[in-house]
Amino acid sequence: MKVVVDAMGGDHAPQVIVSGAIEAINEFDVNIVLIGIEEQIRQELNKYKFAQERVEIIHAPTVVGMHEPAIISIRKKKDSSISAGINLIKESGYDAFISAGNTGAVVAASTINLGMLSGVERPAIGVVIPTLKGFSFLIDVGANTEPKPQHLYQSALMAQVYMKEVLGVENPTVGLLNIGEEAGRGSGFMKEAHKMIGERISNFAGNVDASGVFKGEFDCIICDGVMGNITIKISTGLMESASALMRREIRKSPLAMLGAGIMKSRLNHIKKLVDYSEYGGAPLLGVNGIVMVSHGRSSTKAIKNAIKATIGEVEHNILSFMAETFSKN
Amino acid sequence: MKVVVDAMGGDHAPQVIVSGAIEAINEFDVNIVLIGIEEQIRQELNKYKFAQERVEIIHAPTVVGMHEPAIISIRKKKDSSISAGINLIKESGYDAFISAGNTGAVVAASTINLGMLSGVERPAIGVVIPTLKGFSFLIDVGANTEPKPQHLYQSALMAQVYMKEVLGVENPTVGLLNIGEEAGRGSGFMKEAHKMIGERISNFAGNVDASGVFKGEFDCIICDGVMGNITIKISTGLMESASALMRREIRKSPLAMLGAGIMKSRLNHIKKLVDYSEYGGAPLLGVNGIVMVSHGRSSTKAIKNAIKATIGEVEHNILSFMAETFSKN
Repeated sequence: MKVVVDAMGGDHAPQVIVSGAIEAINEFDVNIVLIGIEEQIRQELNKYKFAQERVEIIHAPTVVGMHEPAIISIRKKKDSSISAGINLIKESGYDAFISAGNTGAVVAASTINLGMLSGVERPAIGVVIPTLKGFSFLIDVGANTEPKPQHLYQSALMAQVYMKEVLGVENPTVGLLNIGEEAGRGSGFMKEAHKMIGERISNFAGNVDASGVFKGEFDCIICDGVMGNITIKISTGLMESASALMRREIRKSPLAMLGAGIMKSRLNHIKKLVDYSEYGGAPLLGVNGIVMVSHGRSSTKAIKNAIKATIGEVEHNILSFMAETFSKN
Repeated sequence: MKVVVDAMGGDHAPQVIVSGAIEAINEFDVNIVLIGIEEQIRQELNKYKFAQERVEIIHAPTVVGMHEPAIISIRKKKDSSISAGINLIKESGYDAFISAGNTGAVVAASTINLGMLSGVERPAIGVVIPTLKGFSFLIDVGANTEPKPQHLYQSALMAQVYMKEVLGVENPTVGLLNIGEEAGRGSGFMKEAHKMIGERISNFAGNVDASGVFKGEFDCIICDGVMGNITIKISTGLMESASALMRREIRKSPLAMLGAGIMKSRLNHIKKLVDYSEYGGAPLLGVNGIVMVSHGRSSTKAIKNAIKATIGEVEHNILSFMAETFSKN
């Protein structure tokens, strides 16, 4: 299996990308293709000992900035690590592409270069979120900021396939993220989506009130890209602010510092449970190829785990299950 | 000052409503009018000793259920504690109305019975949220699920008036809640709102990426009712789930239990800092009257604090400052 990794994507590229890739080849049965500015990649690789034959470097001379407007960057930088990387999985038989770079650019390049799966009109990004009961799959977290109701229906189908085939959850339930549990809540768009998903999806369990997302009562949680993006950003931002506040308060009292010291291993365990980097990547679904986006702030561990999740998608043949599902719906 | 309190609104009505009202008259210079089913209110009041002349009971025979469709309940139950309570501030010279009941019904009754302030097209609900730097004012958290860009502009103006006149923040900054900081992010609606607010509002500081809401870098944070509702529900839900997870983990280890015991006073302090009930109520702005909505799960303390916040609005003459601001814009 050959996974293409965008060596230039993310706030700490190419360092953490290369270190994550090295950890991945040491732990998993995978070959890695690093795409980006060759000299910079070689310089990073020189820091490590690894099985040389399992790492390939492909030079891509330009880099898409983290905040460049996606469409413009795609049109003007056809030789970027993102565009060229996506083309590798389209034309050269590589299995998957991962980038912690500009998400909008990855979505645009994937949509334009790979095209959509038959039956899917728009791409959507899913994330595995930790819950009190284990995990749920939240989709879309930002690929499509103005979906139509049928795009949410298609996301629901894709989420069920992903949850079942890649994450091993039988008969996954589907909930629609909303501002209340009762049918008829939310905007006109949300009411229409509720109706369409309810009519066409097996195991639809109705609206998920936003306050219940982390209780884990729904396997797949469907929403538009703005709501999903707000959901993950509010929750990561809140956890960071709450941790900062906790550290500030604890430092005010020696006794509290002692207590925190004693609790440390448990607190770290909790941190791990709520840590998004444990999954590492967010699958871009709906496009005709296996593409994973990672957070720009991804750590070495997050990159390694994104590669692990990608291997899972390739091994479980996610694309053919998606195609099969949409051919029947 | 006479504040009308819906005695029948909320999950623990009339008990916590009456106890909150009693605490309020004991602490603040206010007279309370309890509206609802007289017999039930009297039964609760009998549990307390208080200055009888400062509490008035007004009988309203029907109750709007927490999950009844708002418009229907308003049309069919004109004698409910919500509709009749709103009418008291319109017609009988009472100063303000507070309800922890069906928010949709309060919004509908206020809009229909009180009408809008001149220059404001739609109501919006604001909440004071705790941040690392103190607090911010987030608006709208659910009154208007399908606003037009100018409604967000009007919310921004109202938020600035509230922040300055009631909360005492000079020259409050305004940010637009979005899925990225750069101008041009988000849906077409969000781009239009960004442009309009930028052109017309002083102290507009651009987009607030959702991950930064709790950092407290913006005084007023503007969004549509769905985004705002998701924001507060995701954050309260996450804090609850994280607390539950923490308790579960701590119970697994006697040492961690000891540590938590030692930290308890600091942890309680943090809880207080992030506790929405410290403010207690969320002002419904834009309507021609002072109306406060509280969470259905409000505690005695939350009701008392909602009354306190309402007194602040009356004392600071919020309606005339709103009217003055809109007459100039």
